[in-house]
Amino acid sequence: MYGLIGSFKAAAEQREALLAILLENVSGMPGCLAYVVAEDPDDPDGIWITEVWDSADSHKASLAIPTVKDAIARAMPLIAGFGQRTETRPVGGLGLQAGA
Amino acid sequence: MYGLIGSFKAAAEQREALLAILLENVSGMPGCLAYVVAEDPDDPDGIWITEVWDSADSHKASLAIPTVKDAIARAMPLIAGFGQRTETRPVGGLGLQAGA
Repeated sequence: MYGLIGSFKAAAEQREALLAILLENVSGMPGCLAYVVAEDPDDPDGIWITEVWDSADSHKASLAIPTVKDAIARAMPLIAGFGQRTETRPVGGLGLQAGA
Repeated sequence: MYGLIGSFKAAAEQREALLAILLENVSGMPGCLAYVVAEDPDDPDGIWITEVWDSADSHKASLAIPTVKDAIARAMPLIAGFGQRTETRPVGGLGLQAGA
């Protein structure tokens, strides 16, 4: 499996709008086993996303899905900056959809 | 919801044993909505855990569950050090068990 832990900052006052966009496609991406969108409680603009995919290829392919591309295009202007981007190799756990 | 992103280092040659312990209880913790255990692909001793709970209280209560306490006691000698510990406030996503 392939995992990603990422953080970024919404533009001022835009976190809520950005969160809404990020949550649009969570169930429509083949090979996505988990995709959790979270606020940073210590930063009013901070967002964390933790993802698990059945493979890095599935993650890469998701970026070409029309609805995802559209969401990214709408999200980018609302993002002020990117922070952590950590790749992981999940081995198991709770909350991994069976090859959704 | 309450989320945690954490990293730590296994003692040399102990990652596999540590991962096995960490995976033992993933489905037996009330209020745990997601608990993903992952290897750090760039560090042979590195482990990442991303968690989502229905509340911080549920997470805290889990630490008193006998099977969890037992697992922690067996895991501690296999841990060489702790790294990131980030608290988040999940707002939604894929892979959140319904109050498992």
